[in-house]
Amino acid sequence: MSEIIRAGLVGVTGYTGMELARILAAHPVIRLTAVTSREEAGRALEDIYPFLRGFACGKLCLIAPDPEALAKSCDLAFLAVPHGAAMELAATLRALGVKVVDLSADFRLREAGIYREWYGQEHTQPARLKEAVYGLPELYAGEIAGAGLVANPGCYPTSVILALYPLLRQGLVETGSVIIDAKSGVSGAGRKASQAHLFSEVGESFRPYSVPRHRHTPEIEQELSLVAGREVLVTFTPHLLPVNRGILSSIYLRPTAGAEEESLRAAFAGAYAGSRFVRLLPPGSLPELRYVRGSMYCDIGLVMDKRSGRLMVFSAIDNLCRGASGQAVANANLMSGLPLECGLEAAPLAP
Amino acid sequence: MSEIIRAGLVGVTGYTGMELARILAAHPVIRLTAVTSREEAGRALEDIYPFLRGFACGKLCLIAPDPEALAKSCDLAFLAVPHGAAMELAATLRALGVKVVDLSADFRLREAGIYREWYGQEHTQPARLKEAVYGLPELYAGEIAGAGLVANPGCYPTSVILALYPLLRQGLVETGSVIIDAKSGVSGAGRKASQAHLFSEVGESFRPYSVPRHRHTPEIEQELSLVAGREVLVTFTPHLLPVNRGILSSIYLRPTAGAEEESLRAAFAGAYAGSRFVRLLPPGSLPELRYVRGSMYCDIGLVMDKRSGRLMVFSAIDNLCRGASGQAVANANLMSGLPLECGLEAAPLAP
Amino acid sequence: MSEIIRAGLVGVTGYTGMELARILAAHPVIRLTAVTSREEAGRALEDIYPFLRGFACGKLCLIAPDPEALAKSCDLAFLAVPHGAAMELAATLRALGVKVVDLSADFRLREAGIYREWYGQEHTQPARLKEAVYGLPELYAGEIAGAGLVANPGCYPTSVILALYPLLRQGLVETGSVIIDAKSGVSGAGRKASQAHLFSEVGESFRPYSVPRHRHTPEIEQELSLVAGREVLVTFTPHLLPVNRGILSSIYLRPTAGAEEESLRAAFAGAYAGSRFVRLLPPGSLPELRYVRGSMYCDIGLVMDKRSGRLMVFSAIDNLCRGASGQAVANANLMSGLPLECGLEAAPLAP
Amino acid sequence: MSEIIRAGLVGVTGYTGMELARILAAHPVIRLTAVTSREEAGRALEDIYPFLRGFACGKLCLIAPDPEALAKSCDLAFLAVPHGAAMELAATLRALGVKVVDLSADFRLREAGIYREWYGQEHTQPARLKEAVYGLPELYAGEIAGAGLVANPGCYPTSVILALYPLLRQGLVETGSVIIDAKSGVSGAGRKASQAHLFSEVGESFRPYSVPRHRHTPEIEQELSLVAGREVLVTFTPHLLPVNRGILSSIYLRPTAGAEEESLRAAFAGAYAGSRFVRLLPPGSLPELRYVRGSMYCDIGLVMDKRSGRLMVFSAIDNLCRGASGQAVANANLMSGLPLECGLEAAPLAP
Repeated sequence: MSEIIRAGLVGVTGYTGMELARILAAHPVIRLTAVTSREEAGRALEDIYPFLRGFACGKLCLIAPDPEALAKSCDLAFLAVPHGAAMELAATLRALGVKVVDLSADFRLREAGIYREWYGQEHTQPARLKEAVYGLPELYAGEIAGAGLVANPGCYPTSVILALYPLLRQGLVETGSVIIDAKSGVSGAGRKASQAHLFSEVGESFRPYSVPRHRHTPEIEQELSLVAGREVLVTFTPHLLPVNRGILSSIYLRPTAGAEEESLRAAFAGAYAGSRFVRLLPPGSLPELRYVRGSMYCDIGLVMDKRSGRLMVFSAIDNLCRGASGQAVANANLMSGLPLECGLEAAPLAP
Repeated sequence: MSEIIRAGLVGVTGYTGMELARILAAHPVIRLTAVTSREEAGRALEDIYPFLRGFACGKLCLIAPDPEALAKSCDLAFLAVPHGAAMELAATLRALGVKVVDLSADFRLREAGIYREWYGQEHTQPARLKEAVYGLPELYAGEIAGAGLVANPGCYPTSVILALYPLLRQGLVETGSVIIDAKSGVSGAGRKASQAHLFSEVGESFRPYSVPRHRHTPEIEQELSLVAGREVLVTFTPHLLPVNRGILSSIYLRPTAGAEEESLRAAFAGAYAGSRFVRLLPPGSLPELRYVRGSMYCDIGLVMDKRSGRLMVFSAIDNLCRGASGQAVANANLMSGLPLECGLEAAPLAP
Repeated sequence: MSEIIRAGLVGVTGYTGMELARILAAHPVIRLTAVTSREEAGRALEDIYPFLRGFACGKLCLIAPDPEALAKSCDLAFLAVPHGAAMELAATLRALGVKVVDLSADFRLREAGIYREWYGQEHTQPARLKEAVYGLPELYAGEIAGAGLVANPGCYPTSVILALYPLLRQGLVETGSVIIDAKSGVSGAGRKASQAHLFSEVGESFRPYSVPRHRHTPEIEQELSLVAGREVLVTFTPHLLPVNRGILSSIYLRPTAGAEEESLRAAFAGAYAGSRFVRLLPPGSLPELRYVRGSMYCDIGLVMDKRSGRLMVFSAIDNLCRGASGQAVANANLMSGLPLECGLEAAPLAP
Repeated sequence: MSEIIRAGLVGVTGYTGMELARILAAHPVIRLTAVTSREEAGRALEDIYPFLRGFACGKLCLIAPDPEALAKSCDLAFLAVPHGAAMELAATLRALGVKVVDLSADFRLREAGIYREWYGQEHTQPARLKEAVYGLPELYAGEIAGAGLVANPGCYPTSVILALYPLLRQGLVETGSVIIDAKSGVSGAGRKASQAHLFSEVGESFRPYSVPRHRHTPEIEQELSLVAGREVLVTFTPHLLPVNRGILSSIYLRPTAGAEEESLRAAFAGAYAGSRFVRLLPPGSLPELRYVRGSMYCDIGLVMDKRSGRLMVFSAIDNLCRGASGQAVANANLMSGLPLECGLEAAPLAP
């Protein structure tokens, strides 16, 4: 663990870039050596992010994105750019021998046709798509460790897949009756100037959005179907919460015949034995956003409603940390031979 | 409309009492003549509610609750007391000839046995229970106009019943597959000192609670079953939002065979023709809490998800106004021969 | 009061336009007959402001701004446009015989040179500047009633001038030692897309801004100097609060020799006798934003600190209602021969 | 650094106890070995603080406070109890050889008479009062390193003293004209059930409180006077911000003759050279709460207002971390021979 891993961060001005900078500022092994921003090139990182003043990385001078330059200064690159902007760059960096963790959606969908359908553009790197590993450590730690290109999962999919993986892989719930009512903090909407996400448009309010075709739907269905070994079709409804960070997903399921709460709980215990960052809450406890803030934890609670015969699963994550940049660092850790939790061990910030 | 209706308000220190005082401070016909509070008796209303300074009612001196005194000074009484505390008082006031709008849960459940099961105590006034009218004006305006005792609906039930009434009365959705994911602002938790609802326990957080047995469940099922003409069983999951006011319910349904979005919309248009305070939003628009704040409006949005065959109905209300005190005033208006909207016509406060 | 006043609203898409629409939607005499927006022309008002669905004005079709058209359909126009955009328009409308309430800063500074210095552009209508009346009703009700052009005060100046007027006009505080520490909700920053005012930039945070040269400084000094009869120079420091609405100003003063709390209170009582919308709080009570929300009230609290010999005055207003659009309607009321409070009588929305 | 320091935490159920548990959960050297709570004795720490599930300390069983038991299991104890409750306990623990960091106010005021005047009770441990070191590391690191009993500073005093120390020790500002307008997040009000701090009493609001006699006033004056070498008398006005964490103090000063911004900045640079956790912001930058959240940083900004001749100093801290528990851990570090920043190196959580 003593050797330094040199990391590049492409696209630092969004919230996922900001969160990567925050985590890496104190990472014991992975060190930021290049940070790019088209708009802010020439400025010091601490000038755009005053909270990094006093950290070594704060003195880094932002540069315009340039794969050749990145390849020279970095062993690994995090791409925190919008979808569409990552695919070419990832391919170029891979060709130059740089490991890549892509936080955009560009390599999450395993079929280029699905990408085209939901993102409205052609996938230009279908070969790299095959190479990419879906970066959810609890499911794919082995593949991630050997990967050169990791597709970092979406925030909503992370919260949903972790909540359903133990149930679907054991066939404990019906695959045709999955309803996901998800709620996200505003940082999930990005950091671009936008009237819709001004404080006074969002504060003291709450609303559903992108119903019924949010782009995380095919990603969720792809991964759940792989786990279940059969097609899973979901109803997925995101809502916008007046908080900075966090996603809470409330999932409504029909247990298959004979599934009792005890066996459901056992499925979780089995699936996540040894998983430091998934916490199955004891009966009577349900997840709350405040208990995962700033961390990699995914808290999960189960409730069987005997009256209606439904199973409810609730999961809470921090959308920026577990749902994006923390998970990206965990993936980079694995790709670099480091323990998953390296640099990610601080307790959640409550309150 | 020129004669004054004298109103009593029993229990002013909670949020529903506070909201009643707010609305009645500017009501053109109903005038507060007696306001009670066990703890604050002797103080002026404006001393506990500085926002009422300058209003005539602000000078009212709070008195301890006393049915005889209320009967002398009031034509009608609002009971804004906890459940259990209202039933005797309502019966006494009725016997003294005072009309009563009860904001507690005491007269909402039509069967005393159900009350006992969910509220854990015996109903002492089963005869008055029969007399009580469920005060949802869009369904029962006629009965309310002639009633002496109105059971003001719960906040969640108001948001749910208005969203489902047109569908269930026409048999457009299956009655065995109703899932309600509801989110409420913190004022719904009451105004008693409580660690769980301190700002720093709730701010920047979000959580489900009272799953799977919230007390509004039987009230919802009772009213929906009456509308549907058959038993309706729901999965009802409330969550706590970090906002002061508002309830948004996201409801997942299975349309019965052949139901198309157009006919579903027609059902709403028909059911709420002439209903000033229910607004069916046009296709593509969904409710937001900020657009109903401080008002009697219930905004409703419909989405058919063709992929999953599910119908989603979203409704938004202000839990304190439409979900409690505004509705109580609307009921009092009808009971007094006034137009439903009297004193309730201000536009929602956005932002 | 029975005749309708026809009002135009120029620039409806900002928060002051939104608030004007909210207030006028339920105004008993002033009726919106023309609403303009360059970007949204052709849409119905209720399509951009769903909270107005169901109100008569919601059906108004937005038009591009055109003084001739406005002059035909309106007796009075509210200008809710950025500074610089109002001066020509106001002059044209006045020439066409339309009364004007200008919510921008264009006519607030009585000297064109000061305007140039602080707003960085030339004032093109110096003659109209002389004609304009500063629209603070507690100080200038008489002039406003006879005015054709009213300069609606800035939000911060409203909160400050009302807090100091009684003291300065009686010489009860030193004019060289006025420190104003002011805090405003985010709606004060406007509704243009902006990264700096995204929810996640502002929520859970707090910061000073525009120190030491906020543009409301010369407006505050101009009016305080007029009241005092001598030059008043202030230290004015605004801060950004994570709330939608409200300004609280904490003002630090040195009483002149011999001024006692009692005489200071008497000065307020005298200055605001008969002023419905200024509330001097009793000793021991201090203003809170929640108690003025959505209203015209300015709550004022006084504290003498005997240890330091300083006087502190605190004032709270709703920046959008009292600090902008509500005050504009009050001015329009006076200009139209209506009572100041017409359409502005609802109680503040607490919580 | 390899030996473990065993720490006790007395009073874990308040926010300072919660924050101590959060920080110590990941501390590399100081390990919680005993945690007390009168009300929650017998429960596991993770049962009252679910965010600690998965951390070693989460399994600790809470015990009733007992000095003898603490002395056996701890080298050092943090007292996170209300004022008045700490003095006896601290004395007993000291007598048993346990080092003590007291987060209450009991040992902050160096004179028992001042304590009596402001806290309304007799100080029972005047001898220990003499022994106690005021735990502000930037001023007293040497004394703290050798101390057995450290009085952890109040949150407001921390934010104020750090902002003024460089100026007062060099005589750069007048001591008779210090005005402090401070704003704190709600966690500063404690975690006891309280109506005044319910979400819906505080959210979307803002107010001054405890004016003009907040108990942190004498602590501020004591320390500033010591620094200045002469009596400093302040006007101190706290306000309640609707955020969980953070204090921003806006301080108004009169520079002494000849003080220029450059020399003022030099004073800060000199005073805090080598101080990792104080960041003087460059000209044009001002502190924001979001940039210090969850951290030990104190960000400071200076503005000279040439118009009024006043100097404004702004400081921002996290009231729970720098203003209480993080500082307590920093003190414990120094008392244990560890580097000040041990376990306190994570970057602030933004957003």
